[in-house]
Amino acid sequence: MTQTRVAKLTNVIRHQVPFFEVDAIQMVWHGNYVKYLELGREAFGRQFGLAYMRIFENGYVVPVVDLHLSYKKNARLDDVLRIETTYVPTEAAKLMFEYAVYRDSDNELILTASSTQLFVTNEGEFELSTPEFIRQWRAQWL
Amino acid sequence: MTQTRVAKLTNVIRHQVPFFEVDAIQMVWHGNYVKYLELGREAFGRQFGLAYMRIFENGYVVPVVDLHLSYKKNARLDDVLRIETTYVPTEAAKLMFEYAVYRDSDNELILTASSTQLFVTNEGEFELSTPEFIRQWRAQWL
Amino acid sequence: MTQTRVAKLTNVIRHQVPFFEVDAIQMVWHGNYVKYLELGREAFGRQFGLAYMRIFENGYVVPVVDLHLSYKKNARLDDVLRIETTYVPTEAAKLMFEYAVYRDSDNELILTASSTQLFVTNEGEFELSTPEFIRQWRAQWL
Amino acid sequence: MTQTRVAKLTNVIRHQVPFFEVDAIQMVWHGNYVKYLELGREAFGRQFGLAYMRIFENGYVVPVVDLHLSYKKNARLDDVLRIETTYVPTEAAKLMFEYAVYRDSDNELILTASSTQLFVTNEGEFELSTPEFIRQWRAQWL
Repeated sequence: MTQTRVAKLTNVIRHQVPFFEVDAIQMVWHGNYVKYLELGREAFGRQFGLAYMRIFENGYVVPVVDLHLSYKKNARLDDVLRIETTYVPTEAAKLMFEYAVYRDSDNELILTASSTQLFVTNEGEFELSTPEFIRQWRAQWL
Repeated sequence: MTQTRVAKLTNVIRHQVPFFEVDAIQMVWHGNYVKYLELGREAFGRQFGLAYMRIFENGYVVPVVDLHLSYKKNARLDDVLRIETTYVPTEAAKLMFEYAVYRDSDNELILTASSTQLFVTNEGEFELSTPEFIRQWRAQWL
Repeated sequence: MTQTRVAKLTNVIRHQVPFFEVDAIQMVWHGNYVKYLELGREAFGRQFGLAYMRIFENGYVVPVVDLHLSYKKNARLDDVLRIETTYVPTEAAKLMFEYAVYRDSDNELILTASSTQLFVTNEGEFELSTPEFIRQWRAQWL
Repeated sequence: MTQTRVAKLTNVIRHQVPFFEVDAIQMVWHGNYVKYLELGREAFGRQFGLAYMRIFENGYVVPVVDLHLSYKKNARLDDVLRIETTYVPTEAAKLMFEYAVYRDSDNELILTASSTQLFVTNEGEFELSTPEFIRQWRAQWL
């Protein structure tokens, strides 16, 4: 890791709003954004070698322990949303992400969000120190 | 089992339609009825000693392999639905249920449905003969 | 429309199973397939000029009145599903579709299904004769 | 409003975790808590005369613009959750709620959360001053 490494790790996916995600006032139901954030994290994991399956294989699950969503504009049926998921560097035994969701057609910011996940072992215990495979992943990417 | 046993095994629950189950045309989104049927099966299991956990403890899962829904009327926000789940007797190695969903306030029939579940072992194999604990359950209740 | 027109109208989309669509026994929860079918219908509408918005603009909604799902195999986390949605020709005032869902990697058939939708006017009445815009659509495509 | 009015406005409901709300690691999927919070707000509205329908009838919708969830413990299949929804007094043109979700059997705290909603008119504009019917509601209850 050198001082010149400044680029953010960000994954970008697109998702077109289907009928079943729209609510009675014609907007995306606010709870569906939690799904969009998970789609973003999964795509991030596939792009950067941090997929759920790899985490499972290393003996951990990573439950979300904190989630904050800030809704800026409404999205509607058929809107194509652009979900940007950015890894937030930390030394702690956790995974943190920030998210921005835009309507792709006009680049309108729809939502910002952040999440924190902890490492839990197969025995159901919180891992207080960063797992070795995460140390290696951080050394590789950050 | 005697010839005089004619009563149906039926569980009845009520469910008030929340905002997040209503779609853009102000009706319960049709896919949500699959949830209502599962709520009905779960309540049936609790009432009649056939809960998922008991099935798991006997070494089986019971995936739905066939599902048929016939929509009669719309339901709307705040409607209280009455979900009636009836066990359909069969000698085969399967679980079959019939369902009727009514709006409780005016007794309007909203939906009828039927489902079939098979027994799958922990090894992931379909069980071709009826598991012993199901034979006993049928002898007790039917 | 000539006798030589035999090709089926079929839309094909792919959907990768996210974590939140998998249930406690590690399979896609059976109710989520209703969403996959709707994704298929929406993509069919976009491909063949029969999108929900066009139907709305012609003064109709098309609620699902009958749905039948037949589950063949399990799908799991990260599986890429191929959803094939085929228009079923009918002279009646309804829309009928058949569906086949495959795991794309090994072409395993996961589910077959069928749906029927009726035309409902803005006044909430079922339309008993086929709307003119649907007649024209059928003349164009079938 | 007098200085002696100190009681909090809190609604309490219970919800038993169904199979379809549990994820692949046997816990309630974290996104489902957004539904539980909405169930809580709806029940609060019914108890204290602030139901969605009354808000609609006064010409407003109240979209969630901020949502924060802090996950404390896991909940599992069949757990009965107790959802406590408390009105947070404010002079501003917004609705704020705090939530606590407990496992009812052992009183374990599962989740805390908070939400903020704004008033949007039928014309889609944010209402900057508190609507009159809300002023009256506050005068009545707080």
